Amino acid sequence: MNAPNAIPTHAARNVLFIMCDQLRADALSCYGGGGALRTPNIDRLAAMGARFERAYVSSAVCGPSRTSYYTGRYPGSHRVTWNRVPMPADEWSLGDYLAEAGRDCWLLGKTHFVPDRRGLAARGLSADGAAGERLMEGGFKVLERYDGHFEMDAGSGYRRYLIERGYDRDRPWERDVIGSTGPDGSFATGWLLRNAGLPARVAERDSETAYLTDRAIDFIQDQGEQPWVLHLSYIKPHWPYKAPAPYHDMYSAQDAAAPVRGQAERERPHPVHGAYQRHEESLSFARDEVWRAVRPVYMGLVKQIDDHVGRLLDHLERAGRLRDTLIVFCSDHGDLQGDHWLGEKEYFFEGAVRVPLIVYDPSSAADARRGRAVAETAECVDVVPTILDALGLDVPAHRVEGRSLLPWVRGQAGGPPREFAVGFLDYAYREARLFLDRGVTECNGMMLADGRYKFLYWQGLRPQLFDLREDPGELRDLAEEAWAAPVLRRMGDALCDWAWRRQRRCTETFEQVAARTHAHERMMNIVIGRW
Amino acid sequence: MNAPNAIPTHAARNVLFIMCDQLRADALSCYGGGGALRTPNIDRLAAMGARFERAYVSSAVCGPSRTSYYTGRYPGSHRVTWNRVPMPADEWSLGDYLAEAGRDCWLLGKTHFVPDRRGLAARGLSADGAAGERLMEGGFKVLERYDGHFEMDAGSGYRRYLIERGYDRDRPWERDVIGSTGPDGSFATGWLLRNAGLPARVAERDSETAYLTDRAIDFIQDQGEQPWVLHLSYIKPHWPYKAPAPYHDMYSAQDAAAPVRGQAERERPHPVHGAYQRHEESLSFARDEVWRAVRPVYMGLVKQIDDHVGRLLDHLERAGRLRDTLIVFCSDHGDLQGDHWLGEKEYFFEGAVRVPLIVYDPSSAADARRGRAVAETAECVDVVPTILDALGLDVPAHRVEGRSLLPWVRGQAGGPPREFAVGFLDYAYREARLFLDRGVTECNGMMLADGRYKFLYWQGLRPQLFDLREDPGELRDLAEEAWAAPVLRRMGDALCDWAWRRQRRCTETFEQVAARTHAHERMMNIVIGRW
Repeated sequence: MNAPNAIPTHAARNVLFIMCDQLRADALSCYGGGGALRTPNIDRLAAMGARFERAYVSSAVCGPSRTSYYTGRYPGSHRVTWNRVPMPADEWSLGDYLAEAGRDCWLLGKTHFVPDRRGLAARGLSADGAAGERLMEGGFKVLERYDGHFEMDAGSGYRRYLIERGYDRDRPWERDVIGSTGPDGSFATGWLLRNAGLPARVAERDSETAYLTDRAIDFIQDQGEQPWVLHLSYIKPHWPYKAPAPYHDMYSAQDAAAPVRGQAERERPHPVHGAYQRHEESLSFARDEVWRAVRPVYMGLVKQIDDHVGRLLDHLERAGRLRDTLIVFCSDHGDLQGDHWLGEKEYFFEGAVRVPLIVYDPSSAADARRGRAVAETAECVDVVPTILDALGLDVPAHRVEGRSLLPWVRGQAGGPPREFAVGFLDYAYREARLFLDRGVTECNGMMLADGRYKFLYWQGLRPQLFDLREDPGELRDLAEEAWAAPVLRRMGDALCDWAWRRQRRCTETFEQVAARTHAHERMMNIVIGRW
Repeated sequence: MNAPNAIPTHAARNVLFIMCDQLRADALSCYGGGGALRTPNIDRLAAMGARFERAYVSSAVCGPSRTSYYTGRYPGSHRVTWNRVPMPADEWSLGDYLAEAGRDCWLLGKTHFVPDRRGLAARGLSADGAAGERLMEGGFKVLERYDGHFEMDAGSGYRRYLIERGYDRDRPWERDVIGSTGPDGSFATGWLLRNAGLPARVAERDSETAYLTDRAIDFIQDQGEQPWVLHLSYIKPHWPYKAPAPYHDMYSAQDAAAPVRGQAERERPHPVHGAYQRHEESLSFARDEVWRAVRPVYMGLVKQIDDHVGRLLDHLERAGRLRDTLIVFCSDHGDLQGDHWLGEKEYFFEGAVRVPLIVYDPSSAADARRGRAVAETAECVDVVPTILDALGLDVPAHRVEGRSLLPWVRGQAGGPPREFAVGFLDYAYREARLFLDRGVTECNGMMLADGRYKFLYWQGLRPQLFDLREDPGELRDLAEEAWAAPVLRRMGDALCDWAWRRQRRCTETFEQVAARTHAHERMMNIVIGRW
């Protein structure tokens, strides 16, 4: 395929917004990672578009990160600080902006979205028809919602599909998708890491990744020449770490990178880091047998996604859709898998907060930059404005806190460089809060990462500081070194100054504010203080 | 009247929430001010209840301040940063909390509230019946809404009342309520300060303050023994500075205090202060003839309110309602009238941000403290939790940022002392922004006032610092004195730390968060990281 030759001059008519769940940037070969794992199809997408080397999520937790991706606002603004925290009804999602332009934002897969039913009911608010569906689904028009990670409700198309295909009629996901048959013929659940290496009972063609890809290809086919916006939201490589054959044993422990971790951070950790190390998943991944068992399966799950992304790209090319489709490929956060003696994500280490972000712009304006890596810091809040910009729609700057990445994709002047990426963590919901004996309002953490340093603010506790240039592994917390005081000061001040610049007014556009400036007499016939 | 003897043991069944508009704390004799102006009736309320000596509004602008009074949240949280900025539909008001308890929050007078019609329409949201009315009126059940300060729409009961009483059929408010007849018999508008001293054409009994008081007395009478919550929101002593006889010339320029102002702040002002000094109202009030003409009329308007508050208290006493009615008396902000070379309010000087706050609690638990002045810092966000607490309703701490003042009213332990009061100013809507050539997102100001210092943060500009103990007039900005650096540092850090403690989660109660802490396996059947 020779993408550039296929690029006409007109801009995007369609948008394919692909999100993976728990995919580390350095798992992909185009991000210089992967080791034995090669991801030629995602690499091919990167060769067609722009790859953002320093892309950060605003939270390394599914719910808050996805809400930032979908609203273009930071967790401190959209207030969905954890999984399944209902989104306040005044927040606008990508689908709400598209709806104002008469377009739908179709969903296939996971969102983790929960509406604020109590708040709506208390105010007697209701919405009917398409608006009502958008409200209940975070702005999306649901083709098929599938949040994964637990036995799906009866309404799930995937569940029906599995049952029709002859899998367990009662709990097809737990029994077959994350279930395996042990060497002794007994059932082995994917909930236990010790079983990660066993192949899922489900056939690869019936697995979550294959199923969602099939649905996406069907949808794109069905649209014909009608413009569309599709959010394809994969469940994997998120746990349960369970891959179907042949991906379950495609890689071995020898192929997997060892966790990045040091003795100092284990023996004298920051209090929050120390509390997180006591979580069950951290204690598990601290053991070599665990990461050795899990990392190869994770690699297999990533390889599987890459193969299906290849199928998707082939279909788009055959259908001529590479001519007029903006493609965004990203992840809601990474996966530590033993890095820094931690399992899961959440904590502000690179393995959790740095994600892949690839933007393919079909416009000829992007031809000159295809295949380039962009050093400019990007954040997940930039996706909404990037999509609106590519479709020629106004970016509502009085609400959206990110900015369009198209100028960087096209190598144009895109305004001043972003000084830093900002991250949020509200660990009130985690056992770490209990270990630290803190109240539910005392668990705010924030990250400020400029090109050089990563500063971590912890409510009521000392900050942390890492020098990403001298210590890319983030193994040395410099916060208590005397020379670091002015750096801490500067980063702390920058974080506060950033906070004061957050959007407060979100119900009047900048133009409306400008028009109302000093306009009381003209607009309201009010005279103030005239003698 | 001997209030204490009239106090039974049971708590409040009713609430009378009285707000004045633009009333300075030091205009009242119970606040040690007033000079020739005595306010015996408001003083009498203070003698029955608790008078908060250090009560601050969260903004010295009507709209944001009232929204903070009505939601119990700071402007940075409720996002209504200026007058007539629509309130996001997810914000809860006092009336919404009362509605959940099956009670109404009746409105008589001004709110300045504007619903977010565009946001509601974009999401197809609608509400019917009582819920719909609450949504459109900021949680209130409207007895009569009257925002004042401009010719009222045809729906206003006051307008109908004036026309029925024979005043101008076309523009009764402009012609008669703020209009006067000049010495030469010509019409003299109250919009011009030069006409302040002329009596309004309207008879005192038909004036705004008299009318709203009559309606309040009628309402209370009509309720009989039914419990009620009433927000009586006076328009005065807000401009237009125009009083009916005999209040128009009850005081002379000799009775009025001269503005508090110094040469240094005029010659070398902070950039924002300097820009505000260029506003028309500031240039006017900088002239002695202007404040000499206006201040006596302002005193008369305050005296008129005091007389009507007396009528109201007499009625409550006769009706036996002092037994079971919580009374809150406050103002949405003050009025500078020449202080610091400024007219209007907005700027963080004491004359604008410090307000009267008197709480009368009928409960016998308050008997021991009646008539006391409370030194504890109070803020306008404390009114919602105080009212809910007095009615025995839960205070939704996951949304409300203030705290109940009842412990201080009753002389009980009320938790740790509040470290400081916080104020917000978004001057994007003011001519000062144009003078300073700043964008609409570059005009945030914040105040942090502890018992001793007042620290002002100005986005993109140097801070200000005043020592309220050594310089109660706030005439010496200490921010540029070398010795003040550590104080600026400490206050700036405290402001940031305060910001990180703001409510982010507002759709789950603290109890819900606590119940969900480390509960994924129990509540969701999800196993994370187990070998």
